[in-house]
Amino acid sequence: MTNERIHNFNAGPAALPPEVLRQAAFELENYNGTGMSIMEHSHRGESYEHVHHEAIATTKRLLGISDAYEVLLLQGGASLQFAMVPYNLLPPDQKANYILTGAWSEKAKKEADHLGKTYSGASGEDNNYKRIPDFEAIETTVDDAYIHVTSNNTIYGTAWQDFTRMAEWKAPVIADMSSDIFSRSLPVENFDLIYAGAQKNIGPSGVTLVIISKTLLEKTKAIAQDVPTILRYSTHAEKASLYNTPPTFAVYMLKNTLQWIEANGGLQAMETRNREKAALLYNAIDESDGFYRGHAHPSSRSNMNVTFKLPTEELTRLFLEEAKERQFSGLNGHRSVGGCRASIYNAVSLESCEALRNFMVSFQQKHR
Amino acid sequence: MTNERIHNFNAGPAALPPEVLRQAAFELENYNGTGMSIMEHSHRGESYEHVHHEAIATTKRLLGISDAYEVLLLQGGASLQFAMVPYNLLPPDQKANYILTGAWSEKAKKEADHLGKTYSGASGEDNNYKRIPDFEAIETTVDDAYIHVTSNNTIYGTAWQDFTRMAEWKAPVIADMSSDIFSRSLPVENFDLIYAGAQKNIGPSGVTLVIISKTLLEKTKAIAQDVPTILRYSTHAEKASLYNTPPTFAVYMLKNTLQWIEANGGLQAMETRNREKAALLYNAIDESDGFYRGHAHPSSRSNMNVTFKLPTEELTRLFLEEAKERQFSGLNGHRSVGGCRASIYNAVSLESCEALRNFMVSFQQKHR
Ligand SMILES: Cc1ncc(COP(=O)(O)O)c(C=O)c1O
Ligand SMILES: Cc1ncc(COP(=O)(O)O)c(C=O)c1O
Ligand SMILES: [Mg+2]
Ligand SMILES: [Mg+2]
Ligand SMILES: [Mg+2]
Ligand SMILES: [Mg+2]
Repeated sequence: MTNERIHNFNAGPAALPPEVLRQAAFELENYNGTGMSIMEHSHRGESYEHVHHEAIATTKRLLGISDAYEVLLLQGGASLQFAMVPYNLLPPDQKANYILTGAWSEKAKKEADHLGKTYSGASGEDNNYKRIPDFEAIETTVDDAYIHVTSNNTIYGTAWQDFTRMAEWKAPVIADMSSDIFSRSLPVENFDLIYAGAQKNIGPSGVTLVIISKTLLEKTKAIAQDVPTILRYSTHAEKASLYNTPPTFAVYMLKNTLQWIEANGGLQAMETRNREKAALLYNAIDESDGFYRGHAHPSSRSNMNVTFKLPTEELTRLFLEEAKERQFSGLNGHRSVGGCRASIYNAVSLESCEALRNFMVSFQQKHR
Repeated sequence: MTNERIHNFNAGPAALPPEVLRQAAFELENYNGTGMSIMEHSHRGESYEHVHHEAIATTKRLLGISDAYEVLLLQGGASLQFAMVPYNLLPPDQKANYILTGAWSEKAKKEADHLGKTYSGASGEDNNYKRIPDFEAIETTVDDAYIHVTSNNTIYGTAWQDFTRMAEWKAPVIADMSSDIFSRSLPVENFDLIYAGAQKNIGPSGVTLVIISKTLLEKTKAIAQDVPTILRYSTHAEKASLYNTPPTFAVYMLKNTLQWIEANGGLQAMETRNREKAALLYNAIDESDGFYRGHAHPSSRSNMNVTFKLPTEELTRLFLEEAKERQFSGLNGHRSVGGCRASIYNAVSLESCEALRNFMVSFQQKHR
C-alpha cells in the first residue's frame, strides 16, 4: 500500500499525466457544474459534443493536420484497425505491402491475410527485429494497395528514426503509431492513414485515433461497399465519429491528455524531453560494459520502449524483483520475448527515468 | 451551474449510481493503494486482472449463468455486435430471422444483410412499433440460422413482457438487451446469445457485454473461419476477453455498477423498483385524460423508456423547456421520432421519477 504515486513503466495501458488524473477525479461526479458526471452525459448533448470536438480539434492543432485529413475516434483498439485497414483499402486485384519490424506488424499482416493478398517488402525477422530495415532495402511498387509500417515496435523496442523518406513511396502509406504518436514531431503529410490505440501516450485504453486523408477516404468507398456499415471509415467520417455511442469517458481523458501536451510545449517539447529520458537509460546500458544488453541496434532505438537483458536469466529475474520492491512498476519484458522493458511514454517523468538509471547503476555495482 | 446532482433521464449514456461515481472519484489517482490509477495498470497485471475477472464473475452470479455459457467483455458497442452476430453465425446456405420491433432491430437486420440472407418473421412496423408482436403471430423455422430479437426498444419505449416462450423456438435465439439487461429477472437459458452495450444499466459507454452459450460458440468456429481474428467470438472466449487491450476503466465501472446492483438486492429488487418507477409515469399518462399520449400500447410498455407526446408540438416543446429549467435532463425523444422520453434505468432514483410525475401533473393543470 502506498500513498505516493510510483514509477510506472507499464507498456500500455500506461502512466497518465498526474494533472489529468487529478482533474478527472475532481470533476468525476459533477462535470463543469452540470450536476452529472461526463460519463452520464448523452453523446448527443452539448457537454459531451464539446469534449468530442475539442479532442478532434486538439489532435489537428498539435499535429498541424490540414483540411486534407479527417480525424476519427473509434473503438476496438489498434487490433480492430488491423482488420479495418484491409476491409477498406485492399481490393481483390492488388496486394498490400507490410514492412515487418516486429510482432505487431506481423499481427497486422496476418489479419489482412484473411481478407486479401499481402506480401512483405522488407522484414527484420532475420535479425530478430533488432533493426528497422534500411530504406534502400525496402521493396515497394506503385501497384501496392498500400504500404503498412509500425512506427514504434513496443515489444522489441525499435523505432523508425525518420519519416521523411516515406514521401518517396508511390502507394498510400499507412502507419500503426500506437506506441509513439504525440511523442515526437510528425510529418503527417507523408502518411495517408495513421492509427493508434490511445493507451500509451494519449489516454486510457478504449479509444482509437485514426487520421485518414480525404483522398484515401474517397477510395475506401468503392472498396468497402459490401462491408458492414460499422467497419467502414466513411461511416464514421460522415458522422464525425458519432455514428454510434462513442467511448465518452475515454475521449474526455484523451482530450485532456492532448491539452496537457499542448500546455507543456507540444510535440517539440515532448520530443526533447523523451530523448533526454531515453538517453539516461541507453547511457546506463552503453556504459555498463555489457552488463546490460540492449535488444535494439543503436541505429534503431526507440525512445518509448527501452528493452534490455542482463548477463543471465537469474540476474534478470533478480533485477526485476528488486526493482519491484523499489516501486518501479512494469519493467518486465513482453511475455513473448522476456527480459526487461522500460516504457517511458510522455507521462513518465524525467525523475522516474533518473531513479531507474540510478537503480540500474547500483544494481550493476552490486552484482557484476 | 449546480452543485447538486440533477434528475438524469438520458437514454444512454445515462445515470450511474452515485455511490459508484463517488468510489471512482475517490480512488481515481491511487487505486487500492497501488500508487496508480486503475487506468494506468497493465491489463496483464494482477490489479486489473482481478477487476476483469470480478466483472465476469459478478455478471454470472447476478444472472445465474451456468457453465454452459461464456461471458465476454468487448469493444465497439452494440452496433459492432450487429455485424459480429452474422459474421459468426450466418452461413451462406441459411437465413437469419430478425423480429422487427423498432429502429434498433431494423439496424441489426440491415447490417446482417451485408453479410448474408435475412428475413423477418414478424414486424411491428405497420403499427409504428407501438406493440411487440404476439407470440402466435411470429413466424420461425427450424432452418433459421438464428432468431434475433431486441428485448427493449429504447426509441419507441416498448419491451417484450415475457421471455419464457422463446424456449419454444427451435433455432438459436439471439437478443440485443442493450437497454434492459440487469433491469429485471432474465431466464438466460432461453437465449443462446445476449449482447448489450453497457451505457444504459451497467456502466459507461465503451464496453459491450456478450453472453454466449458454449454450444453456439462451437458452431461459430466453422462459420467464422475466414473472418478476421478480432471479429470472432472464439478469439475472445479463448483469451478470456484479454486478446487485445480491453477498455479497462469502462470494465472497472461495469464491475462496480454490477456490485452495486448486487448490494441493492439483485435483479429481483431492481425489477420491483423499476416497475414502481415506471408505474408513477405511466399512471401520470393514463390519468391525464389524454393530455399525455403514450406511444407504446399498454400491453407492450417498457419499464426503461417511457415515451409520450403532448396534445400539440407547441406544448411538447414548452414541456421540454420547462422541464429543463427544473433540472430534468434528457427528456427529449429520440431525434428520429420526436416527443418526450424518460429513460429510467436502474440508477435513476424513485425520487427523480416522483419529481417528474409531479411536474407532469402540475404542467397539465396549468396548460390543459
Ligand atoms: C504497436 C502496437 N500496435 C497494436 C497494438 C494492439 O493494440 P490494442 O491492444 O489496442 O488492440 C499494440 C499494443 O500494445 C501496439 O503496441
Ligand atoms: C437497443 C439498442 N441497441 C443498440 C444500440 C446501439 O448501441 P451502440 O451505440 O453502443 O452501438 C442502442 C443504443 O442506444 C440501443 O438502445
Ligand atoms: Mg513489436
Ligand atoms: Mg505518399
Ligand atoms: Mg427502438
Ligand atoms: Mg432454444
